[in-house]
Amino acid sequence: MSIADALERLSNAFQDRCVTTDAMREQYSRNEAHHAPVRPDAVLFPHSTEDVRNIVEICRETGCPITAYGAGTSLEGHIVPVRGGISLDMSRMNAILKVNQEDMDAVVQPGVTRRQLNEDLRATGLFFPVDPGADASIGGMAATRASGTNAVRYGTMRECVLACEVVLADGRVIRAGSRSRKSSAGYDLCKLFVGSEGTLGIMTELTVKLFGQPEAVSSATCGFETVEGAVQSVIETIQLGMPVARIEFLDELQLQAMNAYSKMGIPERPTLFLEFHGTDSGVAEQAERFGEISAEHGGLGFEWATREEDRNRLWRARHDAYYGVKAMWPGKRGYITDSCVPISRLAEAILETKEDIRKSGLIAPMVGHVGDGNFHLAIMIDPENPDELKAAEKLSHAVAERSLRLGGTVTGEHGVGLGKIKYMEAEHGAAYGVMAEIKRTFDPQNILNPGKMISLN
Amino acid sequence: MSIADALERLSNAFQDRCVTTDAMREQYSRNEAHHAPVRPDAVLFPHSTEDVRNIVEICRETGCPITAYGAGTSLEGHIVPVRGGISLDMSRMNAILKVNQEDMDAVVQPGVTRRQLNEDLRATGLFFPVDPGADASIGGMAATRASGTNAVRYGTMRECVLACEVVLADGRVIRAGSRSRKSSAGYDLCKLFVGSEGTLGIMTELTVKLFGQPEAVSSATCGFETVEGAVQSVIETIQLGMPVARIEFLDELQLQAMNAYSKMGIPERPTLFLEFHGTDSGVAEQAERFGEISAEHGGLGFEWATREEDRNRLWRARHDAYYGVKAMWPGKRGYITDSCVPISRLAEAILETKEDIRKSGLIAPMVGHVGDGNFHLAIMIDPENPDELKAAEKLSHAVAERSLRLGGTVTGEHGVGLGKIKYMEAEHGAAYGVMAEIKRTFDPQNILNPGKMISLN
Repeated sequence: MSIADALERLSNAFQDRCVTTDAMREQYSRNEAHHAPVRPDAVLFPHSTEDVRNIVEICRETGCPITAYGAGTSLEGHIVPVRGGISLDMSRMNAILKVNQEDMDAVVQPGVTRRQLNEDLRATGLFFPVDPGADASIGGMAATRASGTNAVRYGTMRECVLACEVVLADGRVIRAGSRSRKSSAGYDLCKLFVGSEGTLGIMTELTVKLFGQPEAVSSATCGFETVEGAVQSVIETIQLGMPVARIEFLDELQLQAMNAYSKMGIPERPTLFLEFHGTDSGVAEQAERFGEISAEHGGLGFEWATREEDRNRLWRARHDAYYGVKAMWPGKRGYITDSCVPISRLAEAILETKEDIRKSGLIAPMVGHVGDGNFHLAIMIDPENPDELKAAEKLSHAVAERSLRLGGTVTGEHGVGLGKIKYMEAEHGAAYGVMAEIKRTFDPQNILNPGKMISLN
Repeated sequence: MSIADALERLSNAFQDRCVTTDAMREQYSRNEAHHAPVRPDAVLFPHSTEDVRNIVEICRETGCPITAYGAGTSLEGHIVPVRGGISLDMSRMNAILKVNQEDMDAVVQPGVTRRQLNEDLRATGLFFPVDPGADASIGGMAATRASGTNAVRYGTMRECVLACEVVLADGRVIRAGSRSRKSSAGYDLCKLFVGSEGTLGIMTELTVKLFGQPEAVSSATCGFETVEGAVQSVIETIQLGMPVARIEFLDELQLQAMNAYSKMGIPERPTLFLEFHGTDSGVAEQAERFGEISAEHGGLGFEWATREEDRNRLWRARHDAYYGVKAMWPGKRGYITDSCVPISRLAEAILETKEDIRKSGLIAPMVGHVGDGNFHLAIMIDPENPDELKAAEKLSHAVAERSLRLGGTVTGEHGVGLGKIKYMEAEHGAAYGVMAEIKRTFDPQNILNPGKMISLN
């Protein structure tokens, strides 16, 4: 049996939902990051769990690799089908199956995007908080254990996925987790699938936590004399237990790009973007506290975004940070890093990284979900220029090594994919071998996103 | 090779820390619940990870069962060594290895109890929030995925264990998780061990989340005309997103026992015990909001416990709820149930359960961590009386079935152990088979707490 056999059977079963054109294969060969493209042999568009089950059955019987694909916004090469086979595009499974308003949860198909869900929820007074910036699919976000700007308050996909339906490599369909908010009933399979990057099963339905839209929201920016002052303010804020909803760091280079792209007019120095959620008085109190903290660390005062449209503009600009950077240095692409360290080591991590950037001579604006100890560089390079690529790899490597040395992780939220697989042994030690045993148990033929997460063969 | 071989080798290696006296074996044969006692062949007292590794090696080579034992406070028979072998008492591994104040985490050995940790933390301004009532060990709490009175605000052991060191059945020592607050680096092994009840490995070190002691704390009780009114008030409070720290339900029978035991003088009707954490104004605001909500549902007003000693007295009485019940009906033991449902179904679950109790003729006071949808009965029976035991089993079964029918779980926080194993298939369906495969992968000889969680042989 071979991939050709798989394609024949899939084509017969799925007709025009099994696409093998060059154009389509090319489209699914690459992601937003710098990884070398590899074409799938076909792209499949399931409409239901039963479709997924049938596809997995055919692929299992023929040994055909399956790489699940959500919105294509991941950054570590997760969706590059490095062993060929099929790309399984989940985007047509995009129904919001149920919103349980009283329980504050929603049951969705994996192709639902976070914006789609939040649009749908608008009238309910609830929202889905996890916000990685891009309009990612909920399935993809679960698969990569995504987080983003307001994880500091509402948690990551680890906390926000309550349950999931999964098609396993042998065609079994299982449900992991439940809608009850806690349970001690057995192994936490749901949390095992979250972050497994399509290597243990294909998620076909997810139950996610929702939260009440806050009564009061206020957003502000606060510039600082130094990077260290900004980071120390974050550390103290977190240590005080302030329930800040967003606390984002941007360096002067990032602001320069943002001002040009989003016409923000924010002074170009180390800056925090903040958002407070709560009651009117709670929000005011948080802002006052933060004002006191930042003043002790060279904070230059708040610029408030009081009207809703100003707030939206601020966070739209934050989300467009990378587009701003790309527009500023046309022809270059971002080589994105993703460090996360215990917050006590954050100032050290950022300052040393800044020094590395300076020495490298590369352009590398920095943003960070610093309330979680997480920050990113977008190292802007011409990927066709081997010297720049090599320099970026060296800088990225230094960031990853430092994360581990400081007790952190090489990937705070982007996942392992192709980009971080080389660090898994160093990060996990003997536990990485256990992960490989789990992979073998779930997918002995290695047909689910082979070549990612674990090197089996 | 046999258990006798294991005992000989363990005895040689551990001398007086391998105890085989009848008295000791008897002590480790039973737990606080109703499960039939079974004696271990020996009790071992490791002092270090290396001791645990050596014990596991000997047990693996001889096929000797190992049942880990923390503080002995679990309620589902987890620690009853149903296949004999050794009880591994972790209580001497009770060092607090490190408190990282800036990062708000602590690294502890598994035998550290939650009170010990909180005593140690007192001067730091931090606290460990998970509070199941009993002074359980952190290792045991992690193993059963414990929670308790303030999980509604601070999460359960699922959320509060950041990392752990584990000795596997084959003697490997691994570390799962990290001190960074989030990570997308690989399968979430840490969450897999949390709640695995000593069936996948022996936890020898845990890193747990800490929180800042709130600036302001206020506690109150609020009586209600009806059970339904109390529960509806809880539901609305949760749905409003109020960050209430504790919201506990007690029925009139429980209050009667509590008044007698703890001299509380609280009117004997459906009652909520509440605690608010925050700033002075935040706490006042939460209390005011809750006052408005409860007034709409037949709430009879707060009785405040304003002084710290009154607060402590209130929560001490809540923690002693079961002792109060035992004192009220001497000679009887509690057959404890543990239902957790989505909060929209909580009123239904509680009211139907009350009706079941009435029909059964049994004495069964009710308490609940109702903010999570979780409630317990202490069905008071003479365990030597087969009719009472049978009636309690029938009532407990009705509660479990109802939990599943309402989309909940048969165990919100007590775990599976012996008591809930019979519901695992119904709760998890095909996923239970996957749990068995994981168990086989981690412990192919079935030496780790055999007979619990999964029926392998």
